[in-house]
Amino acid sequence: MFRHVRELQFEAKPEKPDALYAAKFQEILGGQYGEMTVMMQYLWQGFSCRMPGKYKDMIMDIGTEEIAHVEMLTTMLARLLEGAPAETTASAAAANPVLAAVLGGQNPQHAIVAGGGAMPTNSMGVPWNASYIVASGNLLADFRANVTAEAQGRLQTSRLYGMTDDPGVRAMLKFNLARDTWHQQQWLLGIEQLVADGYSDVIETSNAEEEDQRWNKAFYSPNPGSTAGEGRWAQGPTLVGDGQIEFVPDAPPLTDDTGVLPAPDPLLHATYDGSQGPGAPGTPGGGLKKAGQGLVDKVKDALD
Amino acid sequence: MFRHVRELQFEAKPEKPDALYAAKFQEILGGQYGEMTVMMQYLWQGFSCRMPGKYKDMIMDIGTEEIAHVEMLTTMLARLLEGAPAETTASAAAANPVLAAVLGGQNPQHAIVAGGGAMPTNSMGVPWNASYIVASGNLLADFRANVTAEAQGRLQTSRLYGMTDDPGVRAMLKFNLARDTWHQQQWLLGIEQLVADGYSDVIETSNAEEEDQRWNKAFYSPNPGSTAGEGRWAQGPTLVGDGQIEFVPDAPPLTDDTGVLPAPDPLLHATYDGSQGPGAPGTPGGGLKKAGQGLVDKVKDALD
Amino acid sequence: MFRHVRELQFEAKPEKPDALYAAKFQEILGGQYGEMTVMMQYLWQGFSCRMPGKYKDMIMDIGTEEIAHVEMLTTMLARLLEGAPAETTASAAAANPVLAAVLGGQNPQHAIVAGGGAMPTNSMGVPWNASYIVASGNLLADFRANVTAEAQGRLQTSRLYGMTDDPGVRAMLKFNLARDTWHQQQWLLGIEQLVADGYSDVIETSNAEEEDQRWNKAFYSPNPGSTAGEGRWAQGPTLVGDGQIEFVPDAPPLTDDTGVLPAPDPLLHATYDGSQGPGAPGTPGGGLKKAGQGLVDKVKDALD
Amino acid sequence: MFRHVRELQFEAKPEKPDALYAAKFQEILGGQYGEMTVMMQYLWQGFSCRMPGKYKDMIMDIGTEEIAHVEMLTTMLARLLEGAPAETTASAAAANPVLAAVLGGQNPQHAIVAGGGAMPTNSMGVPWNASYIVASGNLLADFRANVTAEAQGRLQTSRLYGMTDDPGVRAMLKFNLARDTWHQQQWLLGIEQLVADGYSDVIETSNAEEEDQRWNKAFYSPNPGSTAGEGRWAQGPTLVGDGQIEFVPDAPPLTDDTGVLPAPDPLLHATYDGSQGPGAPGTPGGGLKKAGQGLVDKVKDALD
Amino acid sequence: MFRHVRELQFEAKPEKPDALYAAKFQEILGGQYGEMTVMMQYLWQGFSCRMPGKYKDMIMDIGTEEIAHVEMLTTMLARLLEGAPAETTASAAAANPVLAAVLGGQNPQHAIVAGGGAMPTNSMGVPWNASYIVASGNLLADFRANVTAEAQGRLQTSRLYGMTDDPGVRAMLKFNLARDTWHQQQWLLGIEQLVADGYSDVIETSNAEEEDQRWNKAFYSPNPGSTAGEGRWAQGPTLVGDGQIEFVPDAPPLTDDTGVLPAPDPLLHATYDGSQGPGAPGTPGGGLKKAGQGLVDKVKDALD
Amino acid sequence: MFRHVRELQFEAKPEKPDALYAAKFQEILGGQYGEMTVMMQYLWQGFSCRMPGKYKDMIMDIGTEEIAHVEMLTTMLARLLEGAPAETTASAAAANPVLAAVLGGQNPQHAIVAGGGAMPTNSMGVPWNASYIVASGNLLADFRANVTAEAQGRLQTSRLYGMTDDPGVRAMLKFNLARDTWHQQQWLLGIEQLVADGYSDVIETSNAEEEDQRWNKAFYSPNPGSTAGEGRWAQGPTLVGDGQIEFVPDAPPLTDDTGVLPAPDPLLHATYDGSQGPGAPGTPGGGLKKAGQGLVDKVKDALD
Repeated sequence: MFRHVRELQFEAKPEKPDALYAAKFQEILGGQYGEMTVMMQYLWQGFSCRMPGKYKDMIMDIGTEEIAHVEMLTTMLARLLEGAPAETTASAAAANPVLAAVLGGQNPQHAIVAGGGAMPTNSMGVPWNASYIVASGNLLADFRANVTAEAQGRLQTSRLYGMTDDPGVRAMLKFNLARDTWHQQQWLLGIEQLVADGYSDVIETSNAEEEDQRWNKAFYSPNPGSTAGEGRWAQGPTLVGDGQIEFVPDAPPLTDDTGVLPAPDPLLHATYDGSQGPGAPGTPGGGLKKAGQGLVDKVKDALD
Repeated sequence: MFRHVRELQFEAKPEKPDALYAAKFQEILGGQYGEMTVMMQYLWQGFSCRMPGKYKDMIMDIGTEEIAHVEMLTTMLARLLEGAPAETTASAAAANPVLAAVLGGQNPQHAIVAGGGAMPTNSMGVPWNASYIVASGNLLADFRANVTAEAQGRLQTSRLYGMTDDPGVRAMLKFNLARDTWHQQQWLLGIEQLVADGYSDVIETSNAEEEDQRWNKAFYSPNPGSTAGEGRWAQGPTLVGDGQIEFVPDAPPLTDDTGVLPAPDPLLHATYDGSQGPGAPGTPGGGLKKAGQGLVDKVKDALD
Repeated sequence: MFRHVRELQFEAKPEKPDALYAAKFQEILGGQYGEMTVMMQYLWQGFSCRMPGKYKDMIMDIGTEEIAHVEMLTTMLARLLEGAPAETTASAAAANPVLAAVLGGQNPQHAIVAGGGAMPTNSMGVPWNASYIVASGNLLADFRANVTAEAQGRLQTSRLYGMTDDPGVRAMLKFNLARDTWHQQQWLLGIEQLVADGYSDVIETSNAEEEDQRWNKAFYSPNPGSTAGEGRWAQGPTLVGDGQIEFVPDAPPLTDDTGVLPAPDPLLHATYDGSQGPGAPGTPGGGLKKAGQGLVDKVKDALD
Repeated sequence: MFRHVRELQFEAKPEKPDALYAAKFQEILGGQYGEMTVMMQYLWQGFSCRMPGKYKDMIMDIGTEEIAHVEMLTTMLARLLEGAPAETTASAAAANPVLAAVLGGQNPQHAIVAGGGAMPTNSMGVPWNASYIVASGNLLADFRANVTAEAQGRLQTSRLYGMTDDPGVRAMLKFNLARDTWHQQQWLLGIEQLVADGYSDVIETSNAEEEDQRWNKAFYSPNPGSTAGEGRWAQGPTLVGDGQIEFVPDAPPLTDDTGVLPAPDPLLHATYDGSQGPGAPGTPGGGLKKAGQGLVDKVKDALD
Repeated sequence: MFRHVRELQFEAKPEKPDALYAAKFQEILGGQYGEMTVMMQYLWQGFSCRMPGKYKDMIMDIGTEEIAHVEMLTTMLARLLEGAPAETTASAAAANPVLAAVLGGQNPQHAIVAGGGAMPTNSMGVPWNASYIVASGNLLADFRANVTAEAQGRLQTSRLYGMTDDPGVRAMLKFNLARDTWHQQQWLLGIEQLVADGYSDVIETSNAEEEDQRWNKAFYSPNPGSTAGEGRWAQGPTLVGDGQIEFVPDAPPLTDDTGVLPAPDPLLHATYDGSQGPGAPGTPGGGLKKAGQGLVDKVKDALD
Repeated sequence: MFRHVRELQFEAKPEKPDALYAAKFQEILGGQYGEMTVMMQYLWQGFSCRMPGKYKDMIMDIGTEEIAHVEMLTTMLARLLEGAPAETTASAAAANPVLAAVLGGQNPQHAIVAGGGAMPTNSMGVPWNASYIVASGNLLADFRANVTAEAQGRLQTSRLYGMTDDPGVRAMLKFNLARDTWHQQQWLLGIEQLVADGYSDVIETSNAEEEDQRWNKAFYSPNPGSTAGEGRWAQGPTLVGDGQIEFVPDAPPLTDDTGVLPAPDPLLHATYDGSQGPGAPGTPGGGLKKAGQGLVDKVKDALD
């Protein structure tokens, strides 16, 4: 169960409103790697974690912190949107090119839909959706997703940092940058802990005994002029130490299967030439539409 | 530019059709971490890579291999769907519980929309979409995403492996498991190479000099009973070696900012009590709707 | 800022697992009116509320409770999914029609994607998305949305209640039904309070002085045989008491504007016959493609 | 069945084109609460209504009117887009800041995709989708949704009204404001009629006899400092008159269920520590991955 | 403006309910090429048509007919769903394999969300969305889309026809098949009329004078073993008669542009090696992150 | 399997960057009819084609060419975005109206998400999704879709051509226009070949013998004043030559079925008046909620 106090985790006070920046700022709230994603992703992983104890607590702790990050960013947005131009504006724009830019670049939903508040969307207005969430029940795979989310989220924050010089906005972003630095480390340390506790390898290896050992060490290059062979990923021992990496230039197919498909079910009316034999589940005619039997042809026959 | 040969990279021959399994199999073709995602993600990263040479070639090589994986999986699906029941079926089901299960569990779009072929959707019919793609231009952040994609994709493949005993399907999945093992390593080795070449840290650290050093080493636990402090992520040196991790139990807010918002613009007709002063850009009345001035009240006044 | 304790708000203990029911149960977690919607909707309205005090606190209090409801339902789902059939199953199904039904009707993502946990989707697998959220900044309009959400959510819960006889599931749903009854009332009481405080009418009436009084009391019936005139909505005084409702049978258009559009911009290559004059911004020829000037025609001319 | 006449319901004639306003105007056509939503929502409720007579006729009558509203708004948009700048524009913009704003703020799809016509999207370009539709078969719950749609739609119309001074646009919006005022009342009167006819309560109460009476009158406040107890929603008799509302400050969990989940199915390869016993359906080893058995470890063993 | 009469265009009376078929039937109502698409597509094209007269009237006439098709199909669905199993079902399923199939294969939203009515979704539950609509303002291009919609829609109807033997359902589908046959012809005749009236070519040729004549007659085959050269599309005169088709086997690139990108903007923190020179808009250092300057390296320096 | 060479198919070199144009240009990359659509659509049709030989090879050849078109366009976009303004910009905008327009009109995700590269979205930021793909297995129906895609795609390209005067961009678009001209023809020639080979009619006619011949030649006009009867589509022989077209002005319903639905299942709690008899599967009371039995009424009874 959750509780709430009124204080934000960190202050979210822009020095002055900036509707154009608010439009861009939506990306780190409601985008693919915005705060809504990490909040929902960590809560979901925590709710579904099948181990009580330090792992579940750790995931839930960060998930709970991230709800506060969503709170901070929506607050920041409502303050950035104070007094955003919502009036009749043609004459005003004619006199003020900065205003003209704002009028063109602001997010109309900030005024029309949200009444001056944040939208649960990215910077282009696409609603946040839960397919951004990653929660597989396998903590190694999920912690990899979490490192990714923090790295991408931090990078976007860093880019947005360079697009403002408002000291209040920057103060909060300095905090967010720091938390994203920390959280990247935390999830990487989580992987270290998983390995130390014997719950995981550093890569996902379930059903390892089933996997075909012929194909798990080769870099196939399908470009005859590729220089990819120069990298560490194409030479030396594998990362897990089970052999040497093989670089295969101008890699050929590993089979002569040309993907020829069986005859179609006649009931599905797929186009078919009969070359694969009759289609299931029909008669010998199968899926084959014979020449001269189409409606147009029959009509033509009748007219002759 | 791309070229094509008819041979698949690896053979995709089920021993016998299985429409129910085909419905599930869609997940690793058109799901969040299906082959369509890695194909499009790597191609996109490669097309947009701002460094010629081994990195761009490596990314393009794998992206090109992944197109062939999409080809293999769509071929497998069309073969699994051979002769899937499309006929009038109530009486047939009554006599055959396995058929009944298939009828209930098969994907209707396989027949109605695709005519016996694969759908570009996940196992629940949600169309693949490009918001699954990650391509930021920052290779460290993107390689983290690529490791994640391979780990999650391998895990899903592994789960699907356990849901069939068709030796032909299993043969292909053994290949896919191997490639996903390999590709996880390849992207991790890519990160090693980025660090070795001096292009990146192991975590995303752009604008590192701007980030607030007070907040990048602390684990804030907002649950008074949390055991999260027991993990490596809550103690010892940071991963990047710039100090000791601090665990902050029952973490308090770091500000007294309670998120009070400024008065709304009266033109936006947000509900407001006047306590924040007049709203921009209006008059002293601001965004405040005074008691007694609503339409209902005016009508009541008139009726009195 | 938020805090978390491990205890759920209410216990979520099914007597036994039921994967088929779990598939349906997703609707009230991740559907249009599932718990994710009310959680995010109320938090968003609260974060963006421009009045400190009892309204903001009330909205935040309920929003915070709803996070716990998401927690309860994801927990319930993980427990319902315990031991859901993930094995090779054709022969098992042949022997057991109930199992056959489960195999057909279970949600494949529960196993493949979530590893036995809840999905953030509705009962058909569509990911939750933030366009379900309503938060306009106008509390009257938003409380109307909240009553709707609780009424629809309660109805869906009630329907799901009739689809199980598991006493543990039913115990939790009895709690959910009760909360939805209460929350419907709470938002209706919120509207009463808004009106009593003078912040709102019972209907949304902003810019009431601008609205055309000729058209706000008439029921237009475009069906000559309609019996809609028999209802209270077609007779008697208006709800806000400003006159008598008018029923207009077989209602005619109120204008002779037939929607004829101006000529198209020639640069946009819309099809046009010249009847509206030349198109902007071009020459007298405007958007009109003259007969005989198409590529095909020119080729034909050349061949003659 | 439907019929059509060329005349619009109300005239849609802007005094002059305004591409920037057209971009914003899309919200009330193709947004969450645009005319497409109410048109499709009411038609759907009407088509699916299981009572012939005044209710079905009333819903169909309004749904049919709303098709005409979509017609009016698409017509208005095509007229607002007349001669929208589609030419090479850098030099023109340099000379004219109003044009610069329009160039930045216009919707590129209006020209590129629609050839100068309306798009079936909201003001940020998100395509309208049918998850906006509410149609449950329960008229009380659906009429609540309809009141919401009219209230939110009217509010958005009212905000857009303040963003133009074109008398032709305003004339149509005065009509739309009036209809939305009326339709709010109509659906509220529909609820009155449902109650009067004995078909419904004022709140959704199906399975009322099953709901747990202990939890349907309590306001749980999870914020120790909340002032929510000051409102009508936290004191006095319930709205349905079955007792007194209880305000529960600093509300505790109602259970000691901490959400501990059962052991995972080993076939799903979820991370697990064994603390919940063996996982179904496996052997005593259950879902537990033992330390030292991972691929990495095995390789290390082999290398030692 | 639109009017409505109660009678359907054609009767929609199944002989008996069939919830499993209803789940599939959704495809031709709310799928990519369902009736919702053609209804909205034709209405949209008609509303936005910039020519008064026979074209606009024709498009509006068919669009208006299609609203009635949506009405017929939703009615059919509600009747197919009569008495669909919504009760506690495990024991019932055990006794009845047909019921088991229905339980597994029915659409849970039909009961939970719609209360026994149609959903505005496809057969996999994906909500209909307006990106299915095609309306470009260019009638040739749009009539091509309309032929496609009728051809695909008819094919899906035909496949569904083979999945039922209910004479009432079949009677309605015989009508739908006939209308789709007719409408395919109608749009093709519309193209004939456009060409005859001089408004269009048979292919879209706007800006024909700008197009590069070197590349509009060649079939480039990027597969060295392709047999595509055997078809009419690879030999003989072009369709528009402006020359001979050229088949280019094993087609090479037409440029030596290898897609090397300029240096990145340093503010965007893209990975870069300096090989393209300094990045805009920065200093000579440009987008190049120098070896040894990362955070990790700095920390290591400090520790040495 | 696929191979890759570094050279683009055609050069993609803008003379100078143009971030505002880049925002619009996204439409023909990631929009409904952008290059991603034709690439994926043709590959999908090719992978799923059930005939080996010239048809499958032809489809695969074009699909493979289209991957190169996506490559060209992403490359063009990254070059158009070189040095796009990402800095603090208010003062710069004040001095430069062209810059102001760019700031307002550029796509924020180009900088924040993609780091100066293309996005896999349309011009309004909506992610590309696979529901744009058409692949039915019926080549006639699919080639119709392919003609449509090339016609719509060419039209959008043509409109974009008019929005730039950059000679480098125009050079590439001249190539794209030519290819779209060619590809329209190619798919139309494909239809000719299908008919010549006896695999198809010119319209989709599966189950032709089942379709009701009474309804496949009539134009029903539901508008009494329609002039649609003047067109070729309303008179003369049918396209397939099986009779004369009938124009039916002011077309009446073809049935007296008024769409009355059966009583609802009481378990679904749909509103019902009993007029259709008791609802399945319940008792005589059926779905009818009797007057006086609602919760509110019961409470009122108790209070009396």
